[in-house]
Amino acid sequence: MLTLYDCATAPSPRRARIFLAEKGVAHDTVPVDLRSGEQLSEAYRQINPQCTVPALRTDDGLLLTDNAGIAAYLEARFPAPPLLGVTPEEKAEVTSWNWRMEFEGLLAVAEALRNSAPAMAQRALPGTVNYAQIPALAERGLVRVEQFFDMLNQRLVGREFVATERFSMADITAVVALDFARIVKRKPLESHTELWRWRAAMAGRPSMAL
Amino acid sequence: MLTLYDCATAPSPRRARIFLAEKGVAHDTVPVDLRSGEQLSEAYRQINPQCTVPALRTDDGLLLTDNAGIAAYLEARFPAPPLLGVTPEEKAEVTSWNWRMEFEGLLAVAEALRNSAPAMAQRALPGTVNYAQIPALAERGLVRVEQFFDMLNQRLVGREFVATERFSMADITAVVALDFARIVKRKPLESHTELWRWRAAMAGRPSMAL
Repeated sequence: MLTLYDCATAPSPRRARIFLAEKGVAHDTVPVDLRSGEQLSEAYRQINPQCTVPALRTDDGLLLTDNAGIAAYLEARFPAPPLLGVTPEEKAEVTSWNWRMEFEGLLAVAEALRNSAPAMAQRALPGTVNYAQIPALAERGLVRVEQFFDMLNQRLVGREFVATERFSMADITAVVALDFARIVKRKPLESHTELWRWRAAMAGRPSMAL
Repeated sequence: MLTLYDCATAPSPRRARIFLAEKGVAHDTVPVDLRSGEQLSEAYRQINPQCTVPALRTDDGLLLTDNAGIAAYLEARFPAPPLLGVTPEEKAEVTSWNWRMEFEGLLAVAEALRNSAPAMAQRALPGTVNYAQIPALAERGLVRVEQFFDMLNQRLVGREFVATERFSMADITAVVALDFARIVKRKPLESHTELWRWRAAMAGRPSMAL
């Protein structure tokens, strides 16, 4: 049985939860309480020295410590339904759009949050090393979040899904980034009608309630 | 015939050049002069509205605008030799380690460079939008580069390659990140003997001269 080290309140493990649900892969869950800093505890450090969630332990005992590795593993081991594309062109589009959702969406929100929230002082980056907050980076993050909404709204004109003609990891990352933006009090404009339409459609998938 | 929009002096297109060479894929090359800002010209904007290199045009006219998409496409279309792993476990390791080489290596150097170089004022991020430099982010980038060397040296203990038992995209990204660090005057310590050993072995591959 696979084991997911998870945290119900954080965006990164949510990506793994949705991916597993869309694949229909049964797994155990071990909660890790990020709010109390459990990821930095000695006990969790023994499990994942990087002190991050999600982490996925395979049946063979291999520990996968980021969404990139987790998705690659699950797609290869449980090919149906495909979430990373089937043809070379689809694989390229899904990988590229997922990367943009990460870099322009998730990372922008994370920069805004981690460089401003009092509870995250010295925690400007995840992992084992403490970094001081950089207020200018928080401000830049907010600007980038708004550009992310514009870009994604534009991309979704005439499209049901972010990357290709079918649901993919890019949609998962996009939903998680969009919802994560609430924590820095940002949401799409009313004029982002394509984005709202797509988000409403995504809400029809049971995985998105996770 | 594939067409690569390339720039000989920049790290990101170098990753694509090495990937193509390791696959032995013939292609045309169109140089884009980043130093004169050609990527922001109207002519290049017509080709790649994101104004970045590398970009790869496929025989079918699809334009791939980042290394993530380019690698996924090439691996699917030209499977031999595999550069993204073969088994689920290998795919996970390659994807995960490549992601770390990007995030902890390439991005750290890019943050240090783009937030300090006078020639990159207002160009703190690639792409179409201008962002002011953040000096504190340049300083943090340098700290992260040194941690990257430590981490990679540790990873390479007893290993010939970064991710698995064979050469992979993770090695390509690691070499490019390591060499890119010279531009911010950072290199591994003499005590990083594993890193130096691996880099010397990599130099034996013709692709690394590109």
